[in-house]
Amino acid sequence: MELEEFRRRGKELIDWIADYWQRIEEFPVLARAAPGELRAALPAAPPEEPEPFAAVMADVERLILPGITHWQSPGFFAYFPANVSPPSVLGELLAAGLGVQGMLWATSPACTELETHVLDWLVGLLGLPERFLSTGAGGGVIQDTASSATLCALLAARARAGGPAPDLVVYGSDQAHSSLAKAARIAGFAAERLRLLPAGAGGRLEPAALAAALAADRAAGLRPCFLGATVGTTSSHAVDPVRELGHLAREHGVWLHVDAAHAGTAALCEEFRWLHDGLELADSYCFNPHKWMFTNFDCDCFWVADREPLLAALSILPEYLRNPATESGAVIDYRDWQVPLGRRFRALKLWFVLRCFGARGLRAAVRRHVALAREFAGWVREDPAWELAAEPPLNLVCFRHRGGDERNQRILEAVNTAGRVFLTHTRLDDRFTLRLSVGQTHTERRHVELAWRELRAAAAVVG
Amino acid sequence: MELEEFRRRGKELIDWIADYWQRIEEFPVLARAAPGELRAALPAAPPEEPEPFAAVMADVERLILPGITHWQSPGFFAYFPANVSPPSVLGELLAAGLGVQGMLWATSPACTELETHVLDWLVGLLGLPERFLSTGAGGGVIQDTASSATLCALLAARARAGGPAPDLVVYGSDQAHSSLAKAARIAGFAAERLRLLPAGAGGRLEPAALAAALAADRAAGLRPCFLGATVGTTSSHAVDPVRELGHLAREHGVWLHVDAAHAGTAALCEEFRWLHDGLELADSYCFNPHKWMFTNFDCDCFWVADREPLLAALSILPEYLRNPATESGAVIDYRDWQVPLGRRFRALKLWFVLRCFGARGLRAAVRRHVALAREFAGWVREDPAWELAAEPPLNLVCFRHRGGDERNQRILEAVNTAGRVFLTHTRLDDRFTLRLSVGQTHTERRHVELAWRELRAAAAVVG
Repeated sequence: MELEEFRRRGKELIDWIADYWQRIEEFPVLARAAPGELRAALPAAPPEEPEPFAAVMADVERLILPGITHWQSPGFFAYFPANVSPPSVLGELLAAGLGVQGMLWATSPACTELETHVLDWLVGLLGLPERFLSTGAGGGVIQDTASSATLCALLAARARAGGPAPDLVVYGSDQAHSSLAKAARIAGFAAERLRLLPAGAGGRLEPAALAAALAADRAAGLRPCFLGATVGTTSSHAVDPVRELGHLAREHGVWLHVDAAHAGTAALCEEFRWLHDGLELADSYCFNPHKWMFTNFDCDCFWVADREPLLAALSILPEYLRNPATESGAVIDYRDWQVPLGRRFRALKLWFVLRCFGARGLRAAVRRHVALAREFAGWVREDPAWELAAEPPLNLVCFRHRGGDERNQRILEAVNTAGRVFLTHTRLDDRFTLRLSVGQTHTERRHVELAWRELRAAAAVVG
Repeated sequence: MELEEFRRRGKELIDWIADYWQRIEEFPVLARAAPGELRAALPAAPPEEPEPFAAVMADVERLILPGITHWQSPGFFAYFPANVSPPSVLGELLAAGLGVQGMLWATSPACTELETHVLDWLVGLLGLPERFLSTGAGGGVIQDTASSATLCALLAARARAGGPAPDLVVYGSDQAHSSLAKAARIAGFAAERLRLLPAGAGGRLEPAALAAALAADRAAGLRPCFLGATVGTTSSHAVDPVRELGHLAREHGVWLHVDAAHAGTAALCEEFRWLHDGLELADSYCFNPHKWMFTNFDCDCFWVADREPLLAALSILPEYLRNPATESGAVIDYRDWQVPLGRRFRALKLWFVLRCFGARGLRAAVRRHVALAREFAGWVREDPAWELAAEPPLNLVCFRHRGGDERNQRILEAVNTAGRVFLTHTRLDDRFTLRLSVGQTHTERRHVELAWRELRAAAAVVG
């Protein structure tokens, strides 16, 4: 494709995307494709000769769109969102066009420095502890996901503890994200060295339960190493008591990592800063702008209070990467802060979002989502056929029909099959529980009303 | 940013990118920024109020561009390339606009099925063994980088061996990519369980050296677990003898992973298929379209011959991800094939590249790069002041001035400071060695000639 055609096709694609966002409510939110349907429609081999771009876009329209679950639909209430916004998409486009690979400071100083700078900005914007600032012993880095942040935190903790050893123990609650167990498994911790303690009231990790586990492990001659606490669990948005857990972690020399992948964005607003109470006791922290902060996937922001153990865990410098800037010690080489070597210029989209929304614009969007979720919770509370499974602290509502597990399961299937909205479920108190997660960029009151109408209608139909 | 402004700004950005590519030779390839320069020019806090997009783009031009090392410059001969192309950038843009997150088949069937399909296409296109096809016991997946592919392969190998154990041993050559040592460290292998065997003639891992190490470890009561072989090492493009290594691996029940991150692309052409001789003995394989196949970073293609050990290593299914399609067993959920949970729609850009170039277009580009590298090697060979450090099998030339390490180091600095081209170095036979890696999308004969002129001029000047 020549440059002039890139200009033409690129502009058409910009319009196609804008049109897609405009017509997105015409599509069923959850894709209706059957397994294998797309593959059956694709040729068995790639073309030998170049094809015109228009033919490719025709196939996007004809073959790809029917297989899309529309995460950008305002009727998307499933999981946690992965919301995008125009400035973020433009930031991703610019990153692709520049095509720099920022493994080292030297391989694009702006890629590294903008990232460090924007992560320092976020420390102030979210009211995070100053020890996460890059100007001290700590600093921030963009990871692909919170899963990778948890893994890197665990590796840093293990390095601080002197390296891999069979007596090191990892802690979290049974409500912690599955990435905690996955990280421990990847890092080679034996299954019997992972304590997923049963969460207490409201899905929170009880300090007493942790204290007991720490004491028992110490008594058994084991070494507590890492605690993964959660601010806003995936199931129910439960917030672990970080301050009390942090004191226990300090006492036992345990690395405290706080995962606020989805909920962390709320700290943009003063009134939600309670979420981070005690965070100054944490060794590391992450949240995902790619969930609720209008920055397209992938973008997880990860901070450490002390970067040395992280570098000890992840630095390797082969000859072919040596360069004067690295040897000077005056720069950050982010390849030493992550699992992969290469990295793209993800700070651009985050910078675009922060500047084009402004802090005020981001706060307004967060408040709008939380208000909508609370309004929905009110409707549930007032309807005798339904109940809240938990009080929603932010923008996730966990609720159920009083008709039992099977009824709720059938309601969910009916609503998702109808396709005007898409919700997912979890289990709370061992009961099938519906989740309404309000965080899509363009979700308005009418979409939340629609969800409630659809749910009640389905409850009537599935009987 | 409203939709109409997105249309306008998006089209301007498309033009900005096309203009950037057109004027890219005006910039010094290696950024001249000093450490801290960009950060000093940025405000200390993010804006409270939204800023106009034009202000952001003005800062891109004024602040970001001087801090860019121009990976897309045709004068970029450093490391290995990370080349982009118009269809690939458009594919990335479309992925950002659709904004789907493909952790499960159900969260966008097209995201999963297009990926599986395109990776099956590539098996045919590159002449890879049929056991990597998804239609059998194996299959392919897109990882961010070859580092992650190596880590996943190692985790699968460990799972096949029964899980983490202190007697498992990892093998490779001392020319293997640093990600092999990093993967072993992440997975918790002790340093004394990693054998980076001294490479033999031409940087290749000698089967005899491996056989001796395997025998010694067996005799010591250890269990050989994983062998990381390389097709095209980073230093010198050395190709390990995969067939002989594969027979040894089979004999000892060792998982053979073959990393062809950069060189793998050459197998598009029949005449370079010798690279993959013996690959049918491998348990896993990867190459990076984001290096030499015109697909912007990140895009690593990773295949396994048997997906079961990989799934055993990486599957965890929490309640909130359960869904009918997963339970049916009829679909692939790629979250179980990688470290992170979330994933974006990276198959789109690869599909766009394959269709818009066509197999013929890709082969022509590869042949052009290899021919240019060979021509450059010829010039080096004919100049008595210079020498080849190794015969270039493909598009990487390793060479040096006969004036010794310090002279070569000064030549490199002078050339890179001048900024018309950018090269990096390695050490071969314990001597400082220059590398010319020809793989940038728009590199023509005149750029390779320029590099040679610059090198000879620098050699004269630095004395």
